[in-house]
Amino acid sequence: MQRDAFHLYDTTLRDGSQQEGLNLTVADKLAIARHLDGLGVGFIEGGWPGANPKDTEFFRRALTELDLENAQLTAFGATRRAGTRAADDPQVAALRDSGAGVVTLVAKSHDRHVELALRTTLEENLAMIRDTVSHLRAEGRRVFLDAEHFFDGYRANRAYALEVVRTAAEAGADVIALCDTNGGMLPDELADIVHDVVGTGARVGIHCHDDSGCAVANSLAAVRAGATHVQGCANGYGERSGNANLFTLVGNLQLKRGMDLVSGDQLARMTRIAHAVSEITNVTPSSQQPYVGLSAFAHKAGLHASAIKVDPDLYQHIDPAAVGNDMRMLVSGMAGRASVELKGRELGYDLSGEKAKQVVDRVKELEATGHTFEAADASFELLLREELTGVRQRHFEVESWRTIVERRADGVMVSEATVKLHAKGERIIATGEGNGPVNALDNALRIALGRLYPELATMELVDYKVRILEGSHGTSARTRVLIESSDGAREWGTVGVEDNVIAASWQALEEAVSYGLLNAGYEAG
Amino acid sequence: MQRDAFHLYDTTLRDGSQQEGLNLTVADKLAIARHLDGLGVGFIEGGWPGANPKDTEFFRRALTELDLENAQLTAFGATRRAGTRAADDPQVAALRDSGAGVVTLVAKSHDRHVELALRTTLEENLAMIRDTVSHLRAEGRRVFLDAEHFFDGYRANRAYALEVVRTAAEAGADVIALCDTNGGMLPDELADIVHDVVGTGARVGIHCHDDSGCAVANSLAAVRAGATHVQGCANGYGERSGNANLFTLVGNLQLKRGMDLVSGDQLARMTRIAHAVSEITNVTPSSQQPYVGLSAFAHKAGLHASAIKVDPDLYQHIDPAAVGNDMRMLVSGMAGRASVELKGRELGYDLSGEKAKQVVDRVKELEATGHTFEAADASFELLLREELTGVRQRHFEVESWRTIVERRADGVMVSEATVKLHAKGERIIATGEGNGPVNALDNALRIALGRLYPELATMELVDYKVRILEGSHGTSARTRVLIESSDGAREWGTVGVEDNVIAASWQALEEAVSYGLLNAGYEAG
Repeated sequence: MQRDAFHLYDTTLRDGSQQEGLNLTVADKLAIARHLDGLGVGFIEGGWPGANPKDTEFFRRALTELDLENAQLTAFGATRRAGTRAADDPQVAALRDSGAGVVTLVAKSHDRHVELALRTTLEENLAMIRDTVSHLRAEGRRVFLDAEHFFDGYRANRAYALEVVRTAAEAGADVIALCDTNGGMLPDELADIVHDVVGTGARVGIHCHDDSGCAVANSLAAVRAGATHVQGCANGYGERSGNANLFTLVGNLQLKRGMDLVSGDQLARMTRIAHAVSEITNVTPSSQQPYVGLSAFAHKAGLHASAIKVDPDLYQHIDPAAVGNDMRMLVSGMAGRASVELKGRELGYDLSGEKAKQVVDRVKELEATGHTFEAADASFELLLREELTGVRQRHFEVESWRTIVERRADGVMVSEATVKLHAKGERIIATGEGNGPVNALDNALRIALGRLYPELATMELVDYKVRILEGSHGTSARTRVLIESSDGAREWGTVGVEDNVIAASWQALEEAVSYGLLNAGYEAG
Repeated sequence: MQRDAFHLYDTTLRDGSQQEGLNLTVADKLAIARHLDGLGVGFIEGGWPGANPKDTEFFRRALTELDLENAQLTAFGATRRAGTRAADDPQVAALRDSGAGVVTLVAKSHDRHVELALRTTLEENLAMIRDTVSHLRAEGRRVFLDAEHFFDGYRANRAYALEVVRTAAEAGADVIALCDTNGGMLPDELADIVHDVVGTGARVGIHCHDDSGCAVANSLAAVRAGATHVQGCANGYGERSGNANLFTLVGNLQLKRGMDLVSGDQLARMTRIAHAVSEITNVTPSSQQPYVGLSAFAHKAGLHASAIKVDPDLYQHIDPAAVGNDMRMLVSGMAGRASVELKGRELGYDLSGEKAKQVVDRVKELEATGHTFEAADASFELLLREELTGVRQRHFEVESWRTIVERRADGVMVSEATVKLHAKGERIIATGEGNGPVNALDNALRIALGRLYPELATMELVDYKVRILEGSHGTSARTRVLIESSDGAREWGTVGVEDNVIAASWQALEEAVSYGLLNAGYEAG
């Protein structure tokens, strides 16, 4: 598809960043921009330079540090203030001089907002639009207009809303993006309105929010009604219920509506990109996210697992590989024999009927106490081996361990752990320090085993998640810890469930090390 | 609306429970059923008795322990096995004898599934449907049919799919629920198909999955096309990307499409019910959930906060009170003076321009280190007071604290904490024990202060959340702890951010106690 015939427009860095709990640094924004560029989006709205100091900084650094291959950076901002001239308005100047070739102006298109929020006349609002758009065009910038609260405005005063569209288009705005700012629209009504606006001859865009759970459907309906510019945010970020999810939009438009928005290779990066972005934002991604979520193609019910053994297409709406995702078999007591057999095969073991049942029973038992093996393949494998061989992998036998965390009278924080264990016929006592009790335990364990098992030097913990299993009743809560470890070549997950976070961490740590040593070639009895 | 004219059908306990990470006990299921009944749903699908032992138990206990006011319990299960008689099939008997007045049978409606998954003929599949439906009707049960993979089946073999619908309806099934089992449909195409099926004269239901992010929109489109029975799950639970979110459906159908599904009072309970259900499932609810999410009406951007001061309706698609939710002002550096003034007013303080700016700056500073005040009103209020009065609330001065967690050689786990502090002119040393280091610290602090501040006896920690702020690089990660405390009458939240979980917990604990004592009437210098 000709690049400019259809716009895939991302506003993660501007509208998305208004999500509760999301706080991006300039470095974060630059990194996210690179990822989105890798997906092949056409436009990346970088922020509001002039109004937001972090964003002014972002655009400044982008000039030298951001080398986009696919996307164009856009600067977002408001039309000039009432009663001034665009050419004299410092905020407009900031947009003009941001270095971005495209400026997206937000303007009121709902008469009540003009009167109550802007506190000016309907005529002056049109003049603000006309003046600011023409000014930026005259300065050589491409201009898009975000018509704020468009649908509510259209329903309150259709004539004025359309006047806003016409004014902006005549002044030179290439696209008028109709914004469902309150997120209250439903697809049928929205499509009718978009159709009407398309009739004015302006190029129409769509910007939806998910307050009615229909942001994606609304956007698709708008495209069907003639919109050729669609806005969204990575992972559905955004204020309140979020913006339309960019990745779901791409998946649907490309794989279901047959539009060539991005290349096949770019699409196959989407899952990785979605997760990379959530690492940067540090917002836990919803595992249920369409297309890119960890659970999006994870099959659990025993019913489905039997069918999938026959043909994966029977239960999947697309081939997960198209978006870089996987079909995962979850281990769960619910899944029954078929899932466990499949999982065992995935891990390289051949489980027959009776053994599979034994393992399922063991899994059910552990799940009842709060274990989950769904993100802890290594713990599951250790369990499998134990059930199949009758022997628990033990490269070392722990006698006792202890952690001390102290804030001393001089204000200094000290964390220390001591481990006493037996390995290869020796009794070893080691003490480690760290930033906290679990870090100290990890270090103590390494010190204790490092001489006998040099491979431990390449292993490290790369992720650590804590979950309180019974949230209520305070601090005496069953705790589950999931640990992700790596030796540089592969990664593995282990789980620990105990009454407190230290004990749970220890359990997961011990299994992580056992599994690592197993992979390094140490069989143990 | 006549109760039976439109069905609001919940499948949280059956389809929803197939979500990754969701493991419900029978007690959990009974509790969830009561909550859903309180919302006013018409039907609660309790599970698959006979196939799933937990579900058999659920139906047994429901007979005496579940006293539903609004909903009818339905039992879910499959049509009889191929080549047998429904009256002889033990699984069908389990459905019949479950005690549920309604049975929902799942049947294949996609020819390929009949051949490859069921491994029988298309004719026999119809016979299985006819026989099982009639048998249950003859036994006095009301029968619904879930037509599995209906849309894919229709697109592959329209005639057969419609034959399945006709067969079930003729045998006495009251509703044929068309299931988009793979979740791949989009609203326009789905509506056309529903319209066609409605034309057969059967009563049509709809059951959608969110793999394309359109489960709610698809369900609304189906209703518009003539479906009078809609299925969903609380909080959008379900396998892969989840089922259609029941709460979003209710919000949209009732408030946007003007349908009287539940009473105004029942609707106003929806937010509380959504959160109560997530407490039971222990799945962290998405704060972005439409209508009922914590963030659904939470306004952040400085822009919007100024407008909201003028008129809340300017930025909200519905009145949050209708669904029992709140308009919340989030505190964030981003929000600017307007939000902080509003928040201060919400808490009872009058902040003028300069002071507001001071507080905003302090908030930005702390946010940069990982603090969030969005769920920690009490910490924010302590900060406010400190900025306004120049004095930090100190009812006690801590000299030092220490925690020890030990797994002894005999296997016993011991957690102990010692606190040394000054209060009301005394130096106090106290040691507490607990299930873990934080519980022990909490106990030590209470022992230390209990005599001087008897009010502490009514205070307790009711929720405790841990979040690792930089997920990567293992165990040496900045940790944020959010604590919720209660004195029986009110609840308050505090936050602590440090390099390890114990230190972060201490910070949040100290603030929780300070705030509690402040509320108990103790001013401190």
